[in-house]
Formats: sequence, structure tokens, C-alpha cells
Amino acid sequence: MAKLLNHWNALSLINLYLYLQSIMTVGETPEINAQMRAGAPFKIVLFADLHFGESAWTDWGPLQDVNSSRVMSTVLDDEAPGLVIYLGDVITANNIAIANASLYWDQAISPTRARGIPWASVFGNHDDAAFEWPLEWLSSPGIPQLRCPTEANSSYSGEEECDFRGTPHLELMKKEIDHNVLSHSKKGPKDLWPSISNYVLNVSSSHDPNIAVAYLYFLDSGGGSYPQVISSEQAEWFLHKAQEINPDSRVPEIVFWHIPSKAYEKVAPKSAIERPCVGSINKESVAAQEAEMGIMDILVNRSSVKAVFAGHNHGLDWCCPYQRLWLCYARHSGYGGYGDWARGARILEITEKPFSLKSWIRMEDGAVHSQVTLTT
Amino acid sequence: MAKLLNHWNALSLINLYLYLQSIMTVGETPEINAQMRAGAPFKIVLFADLHFGESAWTDWGPLQDVNSSRVMSTVLDDEAPGLVIYLGDVITANNIAIANASLYWDQAISPTRARGIPWASVFGNHDDAAFEWPLEWLSSPGIPQLRCPTEANSSYSGEEECDFRGTPHLELMKKEIDHNVLSHSKKGPKDLWPSISNYVLNVSSSHDPNIAVAYLYFLDSGGGSYPQVISSEQAEWFLHKAQEINPDSRVPEIVFWHIPSKAYEKVAPKSAIERPCVGSINKESVAAQEAEMGIMDILVNRSSVKAVFAGHNHGLDWCCPYQRLWLCYARHSGYGGYGDWARGARILEITEKPFSLKSWIRMEDGAVHSQVTLTT
Repeated sequence: MAKLLNHWNALSLINLYLYLQSIMTVGETPEINAQMRAGAPFKIVLFADLHFGESAWTDWGPLQDVNSSRVMSTVLDDEAPGLVIYLGDVITANNIAIANASLYWDQAISPTRARGIPWASVFGNHDDAAFEWPLEWLSSPGIPQLRCPTEANSSYSGEEECDFRGTPHLELMKKEIDHNVLSHSKKGPKDLWPSISNYVLNVSSSHDPNIAVAYLYFLDSGGGSYPQVISSEQAEWFLHKAQEINPDSRVPEIVFWHIPSKAYEKVAPKSAIERPCVGSINKESVAAQEAEMGIMDILVNRSSVKAVFAGHNHGLDWCCPYQRLWLCYARHSGYGGYGDWARGARILEITEKPFSLKSWIRMEDGAVHSQVTLTT
Repeated sequence: MAKLLNHWNALSLINLYLYLQSIMTVGETPEINAQMRAGAPFKIVLFADLHFGESAWTDWGPLQDVNSSRVMSTVLDDEAPGLVIYLGDVITANNIAIANASLYWDQAISPTRARGIPWASVFGNHDDAAFEWPLEWLSSPGIPQLRCPTEANSSYSGEEECDFRGTPHLELMKKEIDHNVLSHSKKGPKDLWPSISNYVLNVSSSHDPNIAVAYLYFLDSGGGSYPQVISSEQAEWFLHKAQEINPDSRVPEIVFWHIPSKAYEKVAPKSAIERPCVGSINKESVAAQEAEMGIMDILVNRSSVKAVFAGHNHGLDWCCPYQRLWLCYARHSGYGGYGDWARGARILEITEKPFSLKSWIRMEDGAVHSQVTLTT
């Protein structure tokens, strides 16, 4: 099945998609997910760590989500990207006292959907974490009104325990995909489940939708109910997929996941961010994955891989070179989650001929900083 | 509804129970749960931290459960108690890769049930913890055969995610109660849910089943999906209940919960266990509840409260006085859970006239130690 979407007009693109589907031989070419416009670069906005749904029972909680939506709206209007990537921790499931966390997930993608911009999402460690009953509910003013909702996730109807089991990754992803024609997210190959958000998209040439300009790889770095790791099976899946659809490494590849790999620790600036690193905040230590199971070896040995983008550390926004590729942080976009650093989003800009990958950070107040070229 | 059971003959006791139910006026007297035998003390065995269900996919896991069952059988045959108390962490739910953890719970109570001995259970922090996907499943030899069982707890049948959501406390408790006539466990008052295992049992006089010799209070100290605490609401429930059924504090009261309260930290031996403390191992620090919300104040101000019994710390088995009552640890009974200290069980012995509460530890090899009288 083939899709073609850009950021101009979703409806006409659906027609184009149906047309392309009718002329393409299924299986011969990889999926077409986003096409460049002639004479224009292709822009991608990364929204990282939005943390929707925190403390919904307080005045503070919903206000954070309003603020996060405003950040997204401002950045999207400033940048008019062709694609948005939700880089994990879209919601704070361990803080969501309803069985269906998809309601908050849906709020988080709403500003992008409202502008007709396609998007793709990858899971972070908070997205399916089990609800943690707040200690303050046990003292005055006690448990808020939402206690024991009628749809509590209990097999004993009428005797619901206030025990919110959360929403599994698969269900979150299915709901996003099923209800949103603009979603490019995928449930990933079944043999990698419960690691769900593992898939590849391509950005295709303005001249020919069958010519890929870049492959965007999404990998699920776990967390929540799963170890914080990219497994050797995921690494193998990446390698086989890349060898299959890009055997001569002709097409540049860009990789997205939520939790930084251990390689980030090796390149992290000690204090101030100095060349060759580029960024504006370096306020905490890298909180890396639990183990390194082979993905970094594969990436550094593949000349087509240009950069990895991660979120997770709200107080870090740098890019640093690591061997022959770049390791970059996004920028904390949400008012949810720890940290009071000003909110923003990392932008990627791809040009086709010659291929280039540039990046900068766009702040909520419109300021732009930390410009870097990742293909020199 | 009234129950009367002792350890001699469950069937004849069921008849007695039906007879007593027919002659009693419901609501006038508290429930009768266990009756003393004339001329004999009443013995209670505490099984703490059995941790059934750990690593069921390895050779090691099921073997631990076999070993734990042997400990229980040996102690029960040596002591022939009138009641068994399962003092929490009956299972290690964060390690149980099935939706229905009740299967392992049922294994844990099996040795007691097989001997026709009544029991009561209280939850520990591991009993409803969410499954934690083991890191080792992501490397060779990979995920064991149980991957994606057909009854996975997913709303997408046919697309089960290997995401085991665990079994809520309410469901565990309902299954124990519904399937076991010998179970004295209760689901607790609804207004304390999701804190479930809050209830009181009584041990009644051999002369008159309507005269209580001791009240046994069970309190849920949380953990898993809930804070590790005894809330002010639970403390108030205890106080109101005690004032209602024992207004003049005539009847001694004994309290059971899983996680030691912060008061345990105050009385813990610094190194060797010396008088007035009594015990045999003092191998770790007290791992106390997160907060103290009033229960200890209530207990120390009630002259009828004689002692509190907790589990949780596998490397501690002492009793120490705290103001006018005793704070005691049980003894790690299970081969599951951390620690290699020899397994055993704390025994309580109640005499009626005069009332006395004695205790000792019975080891798996039959040895007895740490005898202490808790009513002098």
C-alpha cells in the first residue's frame, strides 16, 4: 500500500494517493510517505516530551497542556513544516488516571492535525507507564472527583477498584492510526512487539515520487512496561530493512528514537557547549538507555546514516558529532514534565540536490538558535 | 454473616457455621472467625514474602516455588496452627508474565488449604505490581515460549501485544475468597479502595464463640500501583472499628501489615540484636513506608494493642518494644525474593485465661529460636 502526502492539501493528496496506489506494483518500491516540493527544502518539526495529561485533577495540569498546545501552534505557524515527528513522552501515562490515555494523546496531536500537516510518532518511556497513585490523594483534600470512573479497567463491573491499568502501546498506536488519515505512524513488525514504534518512512523527490531523498527510521527505545533499550532484534530489523530498500547506501538515512543511546554519553559536552558541538543548554547528565545491543555499531558503519535525534533529557538540546554521524537532542517542547527551560522545537531542513541536512531550534517566542549543518 | 472454623475438621465446622448463622442476630456481634479449643493455646503461623511466580520461564523459578511450598508444609506439620496469615508479597507480580496472577496466588495457599487450615491474607508491594519485561529477554536465548499467550490482556484480540498488565488487588482477593471456603480474607470497606486488604478477624473463646479473645487487624500498606503507606483514612477506619467492637479495650488487639512503618526505624537494633529486642538476623536497614499518617499514634494510645507484625525486609526477623507495644518482623518464608537467609516462619501463640501472646520462629529444618513473650 502506498501513501503520498505533503503539507499543502490533504484532500487532493488523498486523490493522488489513490492514483499512485493504482499505478504502483505493490512490493516493488518502498512506501512513499512525504514528497518534496520543487525548489523548496523539506522541513520537519520535532516535538519532544510534551507530557500531556499530567495531574489532570489539578488546576496546574490542564493549564500545562494548553501551554504545550500553544508552543506547538506557534512553532508550526512559524515553520510550516512538511512533517511533524512526535519524539516520545507525548503523554505522562503514569500520571493519567483514566483507562484510555488515547484521549490525551489525541489532544497532543491536535495542533498538527488542525493544520493538515502529516506526522509520525515514536514512543517514549512515559507513554504506557502504569498509573502511579499520588501520595497526596491520601491526605487532605484527598482523592479528586474522578475517583472510580464507571469505565474503570476492571473485570468486576459494579465493583471497580480505583486501579488504572493504563493503555498499552499497541492500543495507543492503533487508535492514532485508525482515526487519523494524516498519521504516518505504524505498529511496527509483529516479531518486534511489544516494541511497537519501529518503522521507516521516506521523503521522496519532487521530480519523481518513486525516488527517495531520505529515509526516516523510527525505533522504539522502550521504557514503561519494557526495558529502556534498543534490542539486538530491533538493530537487525533496521539493518535488514536498510539493506533491502537502500542496498547501495545511496539515500541518506536519519534515525529517531526517544531515549539517547549510551553513545550520547561519550560525546556529551563537559560543561559549556563548544565546537564541534552546537546547542544552547547542557543542564544535566545524559540519561541513556540501559544497554547497547548493537544499533550504534550498525549506524556508524553505514555511510548513509547522517544523524540520530533523541528527546528524554529536557535540559539538553545539543548536537555533537560521533564518529561519522551526528547525535542530536531535540528540545523540550512541553510544559509537562520536569524542567523550566524555555520551550521550543528542533527543526530539520532537507534539501534534495545536493542533499543537505540542516537543523536549528525554534523557540516559543519565535527566536531561532543553534543552527547546524549535519551533512558537512 | 458469621463463620466459625478451626483446624480440626472443616466439614463439621461448616455445619457448626450454618447452625451459628441460624441462631445469631446479624449485626449484634462481630464476626466469629476462629475459635480456641478448650485447654489449648491458639497458634498462628505467619508466612511472609513467599514471592511465588518469579521467573517462571526458567528452571530456577518453578524450583523456588517448590522449595517455598516445602517450607510451608514442614512448618505447618510441625506447628499445626489454627490459622495461617499470608503477610504479603505472596507473589512477585512484576515478574509474572500472565494476565491472571491468581494462578500463582493459588499455588501459594495450597499447602495450607490441603491441610484444612483456615487462613487470611494481606497484600504486599509486589502482589499487584505491573509486569517488568526482563532485559535478558532481549538477548539470546531471547523471549521464552510463553510469548503472547492467547489470553493476553489486550482489547485487540488476534493482535495481542506481549504486554502483561497484571492482576489488580481486587481481582486477586475476589478469586481467593470466592474459591476457598477456608479463606478468611476480606475485600475491605469500599471507601478505602484501592487499598483492599483492610479487615478484622476475631479469635473467640473456647467456652463461648461470642466472646472474643483477640482481634486480628489487617491493614494494607500499599505498594505496587499504590503508595507504600497506611493512609489517614485507613487509620480512622481502624480506630472507628476498634471503638465500635471493643469500646472498653478489654480485648487484646494484634495488627498485621506488610511494609514496616517508620516507627520500626526508631527501634531497629544498630548491629547485634540485644535485649529488649529478640531475634536472630539484623542484616539490612528497615525499608519503611513512605509516610506516617497517624496509624502509629492511634496504636500506641490504645492499651489493647499488643503488637504489630510486618514482613518486607527479608533480612530482619526481630521483635523490639516501641512505647507500650511490640514491633515485630515475621521471617522470610519463601525461596523467591532477595536474600539467602535460611527460611522459616514466625509463630504466634495465644492463651486465653490469662491472655498471653508468645512468639517464636520455626525454621525449615525444624529448629526453633527467638522465643519472646509480647504481653509482659
